[in-house]
Amino acid sequence: LSTKVSGEAQWISSLRRQAAGARGRLRLGIGDDCAILRPRLGEEIVVTTDLSLEGVHFRRDWHTPESAGHRCLARGLSDVAAMGARPISAFLSLALPPELAGDWADRFACGLLALAGAHGVPLAGGDTAQAPGASGKALLAADITLLGAVPSGRALLRSGARAGDLIYVTGTLGGAAAELRVLAREPAAFARLRRASGAHPHLFPEPRCSVGPRLLALASAVIDVSDGLSTDLQHLCQESGLSAELDQGALPIAPRADLALALNGGEDYQLLFTTPAARRVPRTIAGVPVTRIGRMLPRRRGAPRMVLIGADGSRSAIEAGGWQHLQ
Amino acid sequence: LSTKVSGEAQWISSLRRQAAGARGRLRLGIGDDCAILRPRLGEEIVVTTDLSLEGVHFRRDWHTPESAGHRCLARGLSDVAAMGARPISAFLSLALPPELAGDWADRFACGLLALAGAHGVPLAGGDTAQAPGASGKALLAADITLLGAVPSGRALLRSGARAGDLIYVTGTLGGAAAELRVLAREPAAFARLRRASGAHPHLFPEPRCSVGPRLLALASAVIDVSDGLSTDLQHLCQESGLSAELDQGALPIAPRADLALALNGGEDYQLLFTTPAARRVPRTIAGVPVTRIGRMLPRRRGAPRMVLIGADGSRSAIEAGGWQHLQ
Repeated sequence: LSTKVSGEAQWISSLRRQAAGARGRLRLGIGDDCAILRPRLGEEIVVTTDLSLEGVHFRRDWHTPESAGHRCLARGLSDVAAMGARPISAFLSLALPPELAGDWADRFACGLLALAGAHGVPLAGGDTAQAPGASGKALLAADITLLGAVPSGRALLRSGARAGDLIYVTGTLGGAAAELRVLAREPAAFARLRRASGAHPHLFPEPRCSVGPRLLALASAVIDVSDGLSTDLQHLCQESGLSAELDQGALPIAPRADLALALNGGEDYQLLFTTPAARRVPRTIAGVPVTRIGRMLPRRRGAPRMVLIGADGSRSAIEAGGWQHLQ
Repeated sequence: LSTKVSGEAQWISSLRRQAAGARGRLRLGIGDDCAILRPRLGEEIVVTTDLSLEGVHFRRDWHTPESAGHRCLARGLSDVAAMGARPISAFLSLALPPELAGDWADRFACGLLALAGAHGVPLAGGDTAQAPGASGKALLAADITLLGAVPSGRALLRSGARAGDLIYVTGTLGGAAAELRVLAREPAAFARLRRASGAHPHLFPEPRCSVGPRLLALASAVIDVSDGLSTDLQHLCQESGLSAELDQGALPIAPRADLALALNGGEDYQLLFTTPAARRVPRTIAGVPVTRIGRMLPRRRGAPRMVLIGADGSRSAIEAGGWQHLQ
């Protein structure tokens, strides 16, 4: 049995520096019993935690450490954006198998910190422990906590949609699942993809941090598409007590993806939101394309919760078929 | 490989109810992308995360699930108290091996929620995932995030001590390590101890939540004794840039403990604090005994950071010999 990771890894020192240099709401970062945040007047704080497990959310043999670290933080940032909030600090708890305590952990931290830096989010604290390694089977677990700030009473909930509201989504859908499918079928392609330039919706998803706060003036309800459009739309329908119709021809299906992946592929980290029908929604928000894909309807007993309308006007029920991680 | 824990365990429903019923700063608990907290005017938010790993912080064969859950939350509560803050919400991320997903997890949650309820802290969110179980070696990992509230600019840091300040500690020291020593040597005693009424400083430690905020008017620096008096006092000395002397005869050694356990045993979750020498410190704070154990001194190069003064006036250097979890 083991103890805390001995000493402080190099990246913890860099976190201290990054946190110390952070402006704004963070008064005290790593190095005391707690971090201290000073909320601004008229602000509320949103909080989310997301657990990333080796073998469930990433695999050591598929994902580079940088990708695993990036993906870990992206999940939390996306949740904050889905409230219409700005991220103000992150906390990382990391259970490290002994064989990952050096280079792997440093590269994991690099991937995470690069994304944090891109969004100006200080890593303000956390905890590390060395997972017991006697069995040689210890798995990495990383839990990320994100705090965000949003004007009081303005946070965008899943429950805010009204019948007649229109449904929009940012970016494209199914891209992350399509990239993962390639990776799973052909590990050699993985290495090629990892090295290739360009977008990597699975390996390096881009949470919609800039879009979220812009939705405060626009949206009635928001959720992030983390489990898949069908599953996340169902959450929004349930919380709002409504049904939904999607127009198949309108879905912004990602290159290499198909309808099934667009509906059920997860981890796209797009924002799915509703607006009153009369509200004008721009084609892009913060540079991200926005597509109208359907509408919210009153809930009718016995009728399917979600319906897909084909190009020929055909109607088929959508089942929540959200993404199964890394099966 | 596995996915999220299917469905919602019964205890998640009870968490939703508990959070929904919480008064005060929690506006929205479990069920959206984030929880929402409304800080009060003139308040800062403190944040801590603590990772509890099976085999490092608890053992399935030694600790009941209730004890593991209690201990998990106690670590976070103690960190909040050490800032002089009141806990306002907790978040739990839980990686569950498949065989623990039913009864064990429910009992873990019971232990955690009982302590949360005792301190009026709503569990406002979190994440659960089923750890990959193919190898049969998956370990439980629980990460607790605690948020607390403290008057702006008043949080008590490790760095606030001044030369000449007196050193105090709450309760007794070494009790948790002594109980663990009995448990480790004689597993049969474990079952007896678990059933016995009375204090269980290791199995069910009592974080000093009521004492922490009372120290705002009293203390110059605070740290919680989680790693052991010698190690935690060293942190306080380092952050304050000072040395310290402890009076051996004054140390409040717990029943069944000895000097070594009082100095180096961890997980007592007492508060170690300093006050200006002229300040009057009551003998009990919020019903918890408080003992003066030493004084802070200027740092002298070449001299030991911490010194123990024996009853005969002898002086010996104290090495930071903090607790090694469950070895």
